[in-house]
Amino acid sequence: MDVSLFIPISGIFALLSAIFLFYSVKKQSAGNQKMQELSDSIRKGAMAFLKSEYKILIIFVIIVTLLLYLASFIEGSQMEWGLSVSFVAGALFSAITGNIGMRTATMANSRTAEGTKKHLSKGLSIAFSSGAVMGMSVVGLGVLGVFILYTIFNDTSILFGFGFGASSIALFARVGGGIYTKSADVGADLVGKVEAGIPEDDPRNPAVIADQVGDNVGDVAGMGADLFESYVDSIIATMALAVIALAGSSMTGFSPVNFGEGAIYFPLIIAGMGIFSSIIGTMIVVFGKGKNVYGALRNSLFVSTGLTAFFGAIITYYVIGRFEPFYAMFGGLIAGIVIGLSTEYYTSEKRKPSQKIAESSKTGPATVIIQGLMTGMMSTIIPIVAVVIAMLFAHYFAGFYGVAISAVGMLSILGVSLATDCYGPVADNAQGISEMAGMGSEIRERTEKLDAVGNTTAAMGKGFAIGSAAITSLALIFTYIVTAERLMLDAGILLEGEILELSLSNPYLVSGIFIGAMLPFVFTALTLGAVGRAAYAMVEEVRYQFKEFNLLKSDKNKPDYARCVKISTNQALKEMILPSLLAVISPVIVGLILGPEGLGGLLIGSIATGFLLAVFLANSGGAWDNAKKYIESGNFGGKGSEAHKATVIGDTVGDPCKDTSGPSLNILIKLMSIVSLVFLPLIIALGL
Amino acid sequence: MDVSLFIPISGIFALLSAIFLFYSVKKQSAGNQKMQELSDSIRKGAMAFLKSEYKILIIFVIIVTLLLYLASFIEGSQMEWGLSVSFVAGALFSAITGNIGMRTATMANSRTAEGTKKHLSKGLSIAFSSGAVMGMSVVGLGVLGVFILYTIFNDTSILFGFGFGASSIALFARVGGGIYTKSADVGADLVGKVEAGIPEDDPRNPAVIADQVGDNVGDVAGMGADLFESYVDSIIATMALAVIALAGSSMTGFSPVNFGEGAIYFPLIIAGMGIFSSIIGTMIVVFGKGKNVYGALRNSLFVSTGLTAFFGAIITYYVIGRFEPFYAMFGGLIAGIVIGLSTEYYTSEKRKPSQKIAESSKTGPATVIIQGLMTGMMSTIIPIVAVVIAMLFAHYFAGFYGVAISAVGMLSILGVSLATDCYGPVADNAQGISEMAGMGSEIRERTEKLDAVGNTTAAMGKGFAIGSAAITSLALIFTYIVTAERLMLDAGILLEGEILELSLSNPYLVSGIFIGAMLPFVFTALTLGAVGRAAYAMVEEVRYQFKEFNLLKSDKNKPDYARCVKISTNQALKEMILPSLLAVISPVIVGLILGPEGLGGLLIGSIATGFLLAVFLANSGGAWDNAKKYIESGNFGGKGSEAHKATVIGDTVGDPCKDTSGPSLNILIKLMSIVSLVFLPLIIALGL
Repeated sequence: MDVSLFIPISGIFALLSAIFLFYSVKKQSAGNQKMQELSDSIRKGAMAFLKSEYKILIIFVIIVTLLLYLASFIEGSQMEWGLSVSFVAGALFSAITGNIGMRTATMANSRTAEGTKKHLSKGLSIAFSSGAVMGMSVVGLGVLGVFILYTIFNDTSILFGFGFGASSIALFARVGGGIYTKSADVGADLVGKVEAGIPEDDPRNPAVIADQVGDNVGDVAGMGADLFESYVDSIIATMALAVIALAGSSMTGFSPVNFGEGAIYFPLIIAGMGIFSSIIGTMIVVFGKGKNVYGALRNSLFVSTGLTAFFGAIITYYVIGRFEPFYAMFGGLIAGIVIGLSTEYYTSEKRKPSQKIAESSKTGPATVIIQGLMTGMMSTIIPIVAVVIAMLFAHYFAGFYGVAISAVGMLSILGVSLATDCYGPVADNAQGISEMAGMGSEIRERTEKLDAVGNTTAAMGKGFAIGSAAITSLALIFTYIVTAERLMLDAGILLEGEILELSLSNPYLVSGIFIGAMLPFVFTALTLGAVGRAAYAMVEEVRYQFKEFNLLKSDKNKPDYARCVKISTNQALKEMILPSLLAVISPVIVGLILGPEGLGGLLIGSIATGFLLAVFLANSGGAWDNAKKYIESGNFGGKGSEAHKATVIGDTVGDPCKDTSGPSLNILIKLMSIVSLVFLPLIIALGL
Repeated sequence: MDVSLFIPISGIFALLSAIFLFYSVKKQSAGNQKMQELSDSIRKGAMAFLKSEYKILIIFVIIVTLLLYLASFIEGSQMEWGLSVSFVAGALFSAITGNIGMRTATMANSRTAEGTKKHLSKGLSIAFSSGAVMGMSVVGLGVLGVFILYTIFNDTSILFGFGFGASSIALFARVGGGIYTKSADVGADLVGKVEAGIPEDDPRNPAVIADQVGDNVGDVAGMGADLFESYVDSIIATMALAVIALAGSSMTGFSPVNFGEGAIYFPLIIAGMGIFSSIIGTMIVVFGKGKNVYGALRNSLFVSTGLTAFFGAIITYYVIGRFEPFYAMFGGLIAGIVIGLSTEYYTSEKRKPSQKIAESSKTGPATVIIQGLMTGMMSTIIPIVAVVIAMLFAHYFAGFYGVAISAVGMLSILGVSLATDCYGPVADNAQGISEMAGMGSEIRERTEKLDAVGNTTAAMGKGFAIGSAAITSLALIFTYIVTAERLMLDAGILLEGEILELSLSNPYLVSGIFIGAMLPFVFTALTLGAVGRAAYAMVEEVRYQFKEFNLLKSDKNKPDYARCVKISTNQALKEMILPSLLAVISPVIVGLILGPEGLGGLLIGSIATGFLLAVFLANSGGAWDNAKKYIESGNFGGKGSEAHKATVIGDTVGDPCKDTSGPSLNILIKLMSIVSLVFLPLIIALGL
């Protein structure tokens, strides 16, 4: 039997698991009418956002598709028309996973709340199953998409279009979703909690539904699209490197190791194997009966990791005939876990960094801010060193190909790790619904437990997303280097034996590094500004409704949730355009002006500072958040004290950092790399 | 006549001007007894700090000198014993300029205050003259030091030791001085202004003298040592590149342009010519009689720039026989001015960015912080683009040599631009003394005018210091590349015709970029933490004195200024050790582990993010500061309003950013480059 048959089988298996899990969630009771109403409002809001987003997306996709198609006619551009097909496929598949994930998550929230009535583990099982629907859809469609396109076109450079499509959706989902979630959150908190003095998740607050919707928009659709992109990008990069190695090109400096034909399908096979490991890991939680929520989630991750490592070794030897790529893959797997744990350390309220921020509140908000900035900056060490070691380790054993495989390795357990991520917002929503529906303190305590674990796993998931974005981008940049050299040899710009000068002695490359390093700063400034403006619009609306509808005077007066949802939606979509354009257009312009060398510099510069800023923003934000929670649990004066107020300021600063700007940088660095790969033939053709 | 004779003549001329200006300041009246007492306390405090700093420095210098000397015995290291001599000379010369500058500045403060009694322009003349003493000492000793050492050893690689010595002092002055100035400032403000409710510069505040001392320590000694380093580094880099080009080495990718023998002395001649232009520019202010303080300072800068450009063109053609290096130099000159103006734009209270921060205070401190972070991030665009364009422009006309010459060009007017910088703290101190000595409102208004202009010029000076650090570091990195290749060819590691692989396809180099990009983040976290701890110690002391000595009860009770000075000094010196070691040791360790390629990556990575973070921190901090001042001048509710409180928090966050962490990064990037150049022979010898 052809081993490559294993790939579609695993993909189909993933989708079947997703369907099974979806219906197993759906058949659960959705609770009483009040709960169903709330869940309905959230689902409607989420779907309204997606629908509006898709409207803009479709225009974007059509324009890019046309451009890609037209580019194929430019003489010497070597851009195939197939690129436009695979671009549409990438966008479509990513959009489908986002849609599935959101539908499931917004259906599961009330069911999770209802499930906890029976038992904590019942609620956990429902919430996690709904997350696993997203996880399995992502890996299933990712593997199938790449496999089908490669089977049709038999050309890895066409696969870059698939990555580009996935990136585009991810960009919109992360930037737009990030703006949405924070504008709703800030609007709800600032007017509701601070000005009106009503508790969180109070149904009288007009922005409360938008806030719940935002959790799904940001952490389900945004996170899913982000990781779908990393997943397919890492696979595509590996395949492209294998193909170029097979062509026997004489490469710049380090000749890539040639692992034979098998190396092309190898990343897909590893991914397929990861699907089965993930399914087994998922079962541990879904069918588990224990009380230890965090333990169950952790065990499922560890089991999947162990299985992946074990079968990865066997498969590597079977497919490649040597063990080296396995070492690379294993290094990536470990690095992903290390980065996740380091994020957990720097942001958890049970650890020193966050507690020190809480302590610094004794001298006021300014010291809280400074301490948070410091924490975020220090927290860059472990992720950077982990990625560097993983890269060097992988390269030592298997060259550029190894670096790409280490990214595939890190992402191979995505089926289960994404399930853990998406579990968070479902638990959060369940907690919100139990609050709003007045389900009583016992149930609320249980959903709170689920929610608390969700916060920990969300921190780890964020670290994992950043780390995988960084290593995937590195794989893409190495792919960029060999692809550029290949294209320039083919075009006769380089003669056989000549190498592409991607050296620090090239001032265009150095210029590219500087400009690339700057872009994440500018991008962050833009996204921070976007959140501010969107939040301001929401604050105005909530204030207006409180006053106009007399919401606090009588329980009979109902707020207009839909209006708040609409404001978040419109603001998010309006504000995402400028940063998105920056991300897509910069590499093309820099490539045309500074050439492929300058563009190479831009990529490495943007990856370096993008990675650093992403870690810095995510961890500062997370640590501020938990410093506040640490004080709220009774330390340094507890809720309402001056210390508490100081940490609330820190948390407000950190919110857009960790939930909008930081995650958006993941997309920026991958997107710029994949855009560069897609447009490289054009840049080379036009640039000379 | 040998044209090189012009060099020592210009250097001596600079020193003579410094002496002349020193005595012209000294002969002015130092005011009444109260003023003299205050000035005395400040001078004693400043000298006490320098003395304590020198004690640590001497140990450091002895250790490094010994290490350098011992390294010359390691077989194959190619490190000459002369390095240790030039290292000592560099440290000594920098220390001397710092000492002269501090003595003059602390002598000029009361004289400036007294001078304003007669006329505003009299005060301006005194303050600026004292600044010019520092400016002229720096350029004079810089030019003479390099010239003498090269005349003795006739070996540019020995000059790297001079740069290293200058860097070491700069590191201590910037990091230690930065910690000093901010701990004193925060201690004085937090307890005095906020807790005790007494005005700024109130003589009852025990930390008030330490605060005044801090202004001199940070902005005179720190800034002077920083720019002394840039000045000599840029000259040394240019000379080294000229020598290597003359040797006719076959260089990586871009062969350096060979401008002949004259190119070696050319940067010194340009510097000498800049000295005369600066002297003329200085005279405009010193002998000016007008009322427009800012106009006088700006005119002196513009005249010097114009003269430098005009004579630069003539000299270039005379020495080199072609115009290309002049274009490079001119580009650097313009870039320096553009960066200075952009800093002024982003931080001035008269401009939109700072006013927007002030406006954001309407929604509380969190939005002030976010808006400030955004402003700082956006403000990176112009400096980065200016440096990139200057570099590409210079490289287009004159290769690597051109890039180094553009740095020399930017710094050629240092005599006058440093005078403008050092004028600031003198005016600030004069304002403090007029306040403390109760000189009446008319005089205070005049000194306030001088002080206000000082704030503007300080912002421009900061931008200029950052920009020059960046372009100097770029010159050093190109020097590093050709030096590494030369050494490896000599050592037989590379064969004739082979090139050093400083390519992005080298994973060691990419690792170096990542680690290098991370170091400025870690360094910033360390320096921010250092300020926090030092400030905390000061706060405790001031609180203690207020209570113990009953300072607020009766005017008879005198605070113990000296104790506060001592605490600032001790804390600063203790806290500067860890970040300093990080800066010196990291490149050596990375070089030994990742090789010359990895070290090259480290340098470019650290320059990119170091530059970005330095701009970000300086401009965020400056903008917060002026947003507060904007509100204090009556906008958005004025002093005491909630909006004002919010901007005070922003200012407190920004203070260590702009006065400690940001400026320290200038040193970090230059120091790591020069350390790499010094230890490169050892790294190559031991690394293989």
